[in-house]
Amino acid sequence: MSGALKGQSSDAPKVEAPAAAAGTERVFAEYFVETPWTLARAAEVIAGEQSTGTFTAVPGETASLKERHGARIEQIVPLAEASAPLLPGAKPPAGHDGRYRRGKITVSYPIVNFGPSIPNLMSAIAGNLFELQELSGLRLLDIELPDAFARRYPGPKFGLSGTRRLTGVYGRPILGSIVKPSVGLSAKELGGLVYELAVAGLDFIKDDELNANPPYLPLEQKVRAVMDAIERAADATSKKTMYAFNITGDIDEMRRHHDTVVEAGGNCVMASVMSIGFAGLAHLNGYSEVPIHAHRNQWGMLTRSPGLGMEFTAFQKLCRLAGADHLHVNGLNSKFYESNESVARSIGACARPLFGGYETVPVVSSAQWAGSAPPTFEAIRSVDVMHLAGGGMLAHPDGPAAGFASMRQGWEAAAAGIALDTYAQTHAELARAIEKYGKG
Amino acid sequence: MSGALKGQSSDAPKVEAPAAAAGTERVFAEYFVETPWTLARAAEVIAGEQSTGTFTAVPGETASLKERHGARIEQIVPLAEASAPLLPGAKPPAGHDGRYRRGKITVSYPIVNFGPSIPNLMSAIAGNLFELQELSGLRLLDIELPDAFARRYPGPKFGLSGTRRLTGVYGRPILGSIVKPSVGLSAKELGGLVYELAVAGLDFIKDDELNANPPYLPLEQKVRAVMDAIERAADATSKKTMYAFNITGDIDEMRRHHDTVVEAGGNCVMASVMSIGFAGLAHLNGYSEVPIHAHRNQWGMLTRSPGLGMEFTAFQKLCRLAGADHLHVNGLNSKFYESNESVARSIGACARPLFGGYETVPVVSSAQWAGSAPPTFEAIRSVDVMHLAGGGMLAHPDGPAAGFASMRQGWEAAAAGIALDTYAQTHAELARAIEKYGKG
Repeated sequence: MSGALKGQSSDAPKVEAPAAAAGTERVFAEYFVETPWTLARAAEVIAGEQSTGTFTAVPGETASLKERHGARIEQIVPLAEASAPLLPGAKPPAGHDGRYRRGKITVSYPIVNFGPSIPNLMSAIAGNLFELQELSGLRLLDIELPDAFARRYPGPKFGLSGTRRLTGVYGRPILGSIVKPSVGLSAKELGGLVYELAVAGLDFIKDDELNANPPYLPLEQKVRAVMDAIERAADATSKKTMYAFNITGDIDEMRRHHDTVVEAGGNCVMASVMSIGFAGLAHLNGYSEVPIHAHRNQWGMLTRSPGLGMEFTAFQKLCRLAGADHLHVNGLNSKFYESNESVARSIGACARPLFGGYETVPVVSSAQWAGSAPPTFEAIRSVDVMHLAGGGMLAHPDGPAAGFASMRQGWEAAAAGIALDTYAQTHAELARAIEKYGKG
Repeated sequence: MSGALKGQSSDAPKVEAPAAAAGTERVFAEYFVETPWTLARAAEVIAGEQSTGTFTAVPGETASLKERHGARIEQIVPLAEASAPLLPGAKPPAGHDGRYRRGKITVSYPIVNFGPSIPNLMSAIAGNLFELQELSGLRLLDIELPDAFARRYPGPKFGLSGTRRLTGVYGRPILGSIVKPSVGLSAKELGGLVYELAVAGLDFIKDDELNANPPYLPLEQKVRAVMDAIERAADATSKKTMYAFNITGDIDEMRRHHDTVVEAGGNCVMASVMSIGFAGLAHLNGYSEVPIHAHRNQWGMLTRSPGLGMEFTAFQKLCRLAGADHLHVNGLNSKFYESNESVARSIGACARPLFGGYETVPVVSSAQWAGSAPPTFEAIRSVDVMHLAGGGMLAHPDGPAAGFASMRQGWEAAAAGIALDTYAQTHAELARAIEKYGKG
């Protein structure tokens, strides 16, 4: 993070600014920029496009208007140049030397232009920037938001502490699984599987992101089948497994489905952030009575091209502001392209307070099993995550209960600094998990 | 568009399928794919990830479940190979020959997995695909949706014909402007500018996408100032200019703002689709009483990297389904990176019926002026667009009325096949526009 942004760090103790000061507060956005022009020129185009400018001077664009409403270039940090552009379509200046300048540029925007509104913030700090012909690369790296946003958006109601309280899990990750196969199970089959998992003592179970309210098993029926299984298992174990029902859907439908879940005694709902938007998430958070498990599918569209889109550092702040109690971050050694370093960075970002709070639980998922615990702990030195294994728990050779035991054992070994194979010598479920999944 | 998709073309006459058939309907998605594996392997991974599969076989994933719920590979069309990957992070097979296979792959998904729900459709056809380590490029090119979606989402209430009816403009583009400077005008300044534009006879005026409900001029005050100007001008001209108020915001706020606009006699609202999501747009369309002017800012994030994201062909279908009466498409020779061919393709896509209708007005915008008319007409051979010029009208040397006249003259020349300079010899406003903007 650049010095300019550091000065506005949300990690600093929160000082309540007088409401009147909102008019002068600014949003800071840090971008990676690549341009065939100079970095200074690129910064001017960005600041002009996203505040008072248009392509030609117009009447009314006075100096005092620019002073009050203009975006401001706060910092330009040059990086090494490149000989080819990251993205197509940039129009170089006449006599271009074939070099593409790269740098980090911090721009600040007066909040008086758009108010503490996530949807309008996005039009301001992202907007048309990615399409500018002066740029051959633009990526939003980080944002710092003034307190006005915290006053408008209360953030997650549960977060890490609330989720630990509801699940009764302390001192280790909240361990859970995903219903697999993702789609196609009947109410009876689903109820049977959920009962098996819940009676095995799992902390958490979730719908797959592909499974919300399918015609073959509408959410109401799913809730009945699942909650019956959860309650029956709770009677046997005295522990009520948290189940995240995927209520992703149209706006009014989500509210109905949330209510259906809560009325049935459910204690978590799930939504795909990219499917419902930050506005949809904030709306859900406005009435939700249980933690919101936020899935980030489709996020790859915004982040996999290194010269375009957004870093997770920025994205997770917006998700937390909008109310994500849990937030998916991929997993180490997953089936996805993302590097382990990047996953660890994402988990670290979620762990840093936003406005002094806005807790979210990073959800580690994708091709996970007991053996994923040691590298994860090594990378993050923390147990404050939710760790999910679908096939890695359900397909354990001795069944889901053994799968769950193997996950706990994996984390015990990791936290104690004992090699997995050593720990497995005295822990059968872990040994069997290594046999099955550890030979990849 | 591939043969597989063509077979499902939405341009075909709509045949009402019995509701019971919804269970067997399928969604077709066409992707551009790049992979260090074979195209067949990539297609299998895509189909498995987005339907019944997980990274390891699980109990319950039976052959009959796969048959009912599995995604199906419909077609694989190889393209020329590449020697370097488009995106980072792909993990090649052992002994990889250094070649990256490219192709178009069509996959179909049973709608019974997710129902006719745009948010859940997105989790299915996009979802985690962009992050798969088997792929070094993935781009959604086009989609074909079964009639169940049309039964669920009624689409735009006004579209082209409704907008022509409301504005009284026939036989030429609906011509309009954007309030500039984008931000910072007081109620009085804004009212003055809008009056000047409306009394000049403009068909349409819109807020900038940066200006929605700013603290310095809250929407309610803006609506009062603007509608007063619009009504006063209408008294003078007998023509009520359409004004698109930017109501982009949180879900409940948008509803309040829509009602404020309608109660004040306003006849259009505007929203940034990417800020409110398809779910937010569909929600707005559920109660809107006036056309929805859909701005696509932030869209660049999803489309500028050639190996990632989405083509506008797919995006515009989703926007129309969710209710976009007007949809921004950039302009020819704009300030953006996009090629003229791509802009013309976007306009063409908007003009093709969806489910036999779902009309939207393509909105041509960005660095436009009278001289933009001939190349635009040349490219699309149609006048069924909205053509917006901000600075290109407001900064006309003889004022906005002359700017508006010059735009009309530009289209008259274009449609009549008369060279712009020739037509300008007898049309003073056009001549002055060429003097000012035509020397770029």
